[in-house]
Amino acid sequence: MRVARCLDQNGLSHWVEPLSADRARLYEGDSPFGGLRPGEREIDVRRWLAPVLPTDIYGVGLNYRAHAAETGADLPDNPVLFMKPSTAVTDPDSPILLPAACEHGPEVDYEAELAVIIGKTARNVAVEDALDFVLGYTCANDVSARRWQKRGGGGQWVRGKSFDTFCPLGPVLVTADEIPDPQGLGIRSVLNGRTMQSSSTADMIFTVAELVAFISRDTTLLPGTAILTGTPEGVGFARTPPVFLSDGDTIEISIDRIGTLNNPVRDARRD
Amino acid sequence: MRVARCLDQNGLSHWVEPLSADRARLYEGDSPFGGLRPGEREIDVRRWLAPVLPTDIYGVGLNYRAHAAETGADLPDNPVLFMKPSTAVTDPDSPILLPAACEHGPEVDYEAELAVIIGKTARNVAVEDALDFVLGYTCANDVSARRWQKRGGGGQWVRGKSFDTFCPLGPVLVTADEIPDPQGLGIRSVLNGRTMQSSSTADMIFTVAELVAFISRDTTLLPGTAILTGTPEGVGFARTPPVFLSDGDTIEISIDRIGTLNNPVRDARRD
Repeated sequence: MRVARCLDQNGLSHWVEPLSADRARLYEGDSPFGGLRPGEREIDVRRWLAPVLPTDIYGVGLNYRAHAAETGADLPDNPVLFMKPSTAVTDPDSPILLPAACEHGPEVDYEAELAVIIGKTARNVAVEDALDFVLGYTCANDVSARRWQKRGGGGQWVRGKSFDTFCPLGPVLVTADEIPDPQGLGIRSVLNGRTMQSSSTADMIFTVAELVAFISRDTTLLPGTAILTGTPEGVGFARTPPVFLSDGDTIEISIDRIGTLNNPVRDARRD
Repeated sequence: MRVARCLDQNGLSHWVEPLSADRARLYEGDSPFGGLRPGEREIDVRRWLAPVLPTDIYGVGLNYRAHAAETGADLPDNPVLFMKPSTAVTDPDSPILLPAACEHGPEVDYEAELAVIIGKTARNVAVEDALDFVLGYTCANDVSARRWQKRGGGGQWVRGKSFDTFCPLGPVLVTADEIPDPQGLGIRSVLNGRTMQSSSTADMIFTVAELVAFISRDTTLLPGTAILTGTPEGVGFARTPPVFLSDGDTIEISIDRIGTLNNPVRDARRD
């Protein structure tokens, strides 16, 4: 099942199956967490929304072999966890805002990531059972202000990864039954039409199942929790010369069997 | 206004003014965010709850001068931010669970902290206006598994600070009008009757107002967001010999004008 969220022409939000750029079919039922059924009625879409609004958002650092290599980091012994606040989530097609706090020059970077959405309360789940707790998958852009992530944040990544609009999600949630093996998906980022990252989730160091099991150790993951599973090589700061997001750019994140999450970039100082 | 949350004898939750260990007076109104008024009716309390259930929980590291010194860290140029998940919150008198994941020996530590609860949506607020966005204050224990915080977490603190029960809050929310200056409050932790930390919020490197302003830079803080403002010197891992929490311990966090947050400690492997 492919589940999007949108506003109709009256500004009401719905769970829908996308039919075209501005047309969708309503699902019946309350939410993908309680269960949706295919419906009949079609609506015109005014605006697409992030398919879920997670409360707790975990991020995993350095989880692709070639990305760990490009940053100069050793392969981690355990998943490296950070969090993003709920307020960082933004919608498909909505602008990523370059923060006024990034006052020392360009530093805002893209990170294509497979986002896992938890569907059932998970705690101390075994690796072999972990995918049973996954509702589905969507694309995420783990937008990161590199200076704040590193020097400005005192070594902790949260400040650099928590600004408003730094967690675009979408365009749809694809339920887990349609992606029985999340480890063989092509994943790409494209900046102004130029491919910057092109890899496969097969390059993950810790699989989706291993991540869910690890994070759930003595830790409750409620339905709606999001796990951003790390980014492959090709991020902007590790390039020669470095590439950072600029006002007027367009950044797309694509994952096989999910789709393309597209966001323009705007300088917040222009507001 | 001193606002607690509790369950009555029928298991219903209420916002109340505590009168004694098991007696309280109901407030009128929906929540402290919408506004409460003193009421008349009294109830018997079955159980005290955390006074708020924050969604986004920010923590600030190394924010007391003497604590930064005891850890061997340089004074930070900016507040060092991390986050804790909503699922870490636990109630007064409820056990702190020593995770089974702490399998390499004792490592779980206490941190007495002043928790700031945001009352009005804050974004890009100036230092001089920041306290206007604070609903009130409560005590927090920023419980931390030191091995996971450091080596096991790959340098990121989130894994070590995000286990279930690692964010006790309480016993009451004291509204900001009763604490016009949050920088002169005595703050203590007491382990099994022995004082481990005893300092003043005057030793903070970044004041509450400076923290709210800093975190709100290009970042929306919704009502109910919690900011744990750092811990003073005297934490367990920095002692000679180190002191860590053990099954059967009792740890109390006290802050002047707020009260005492008391939690027993239990080893989760005994479940």
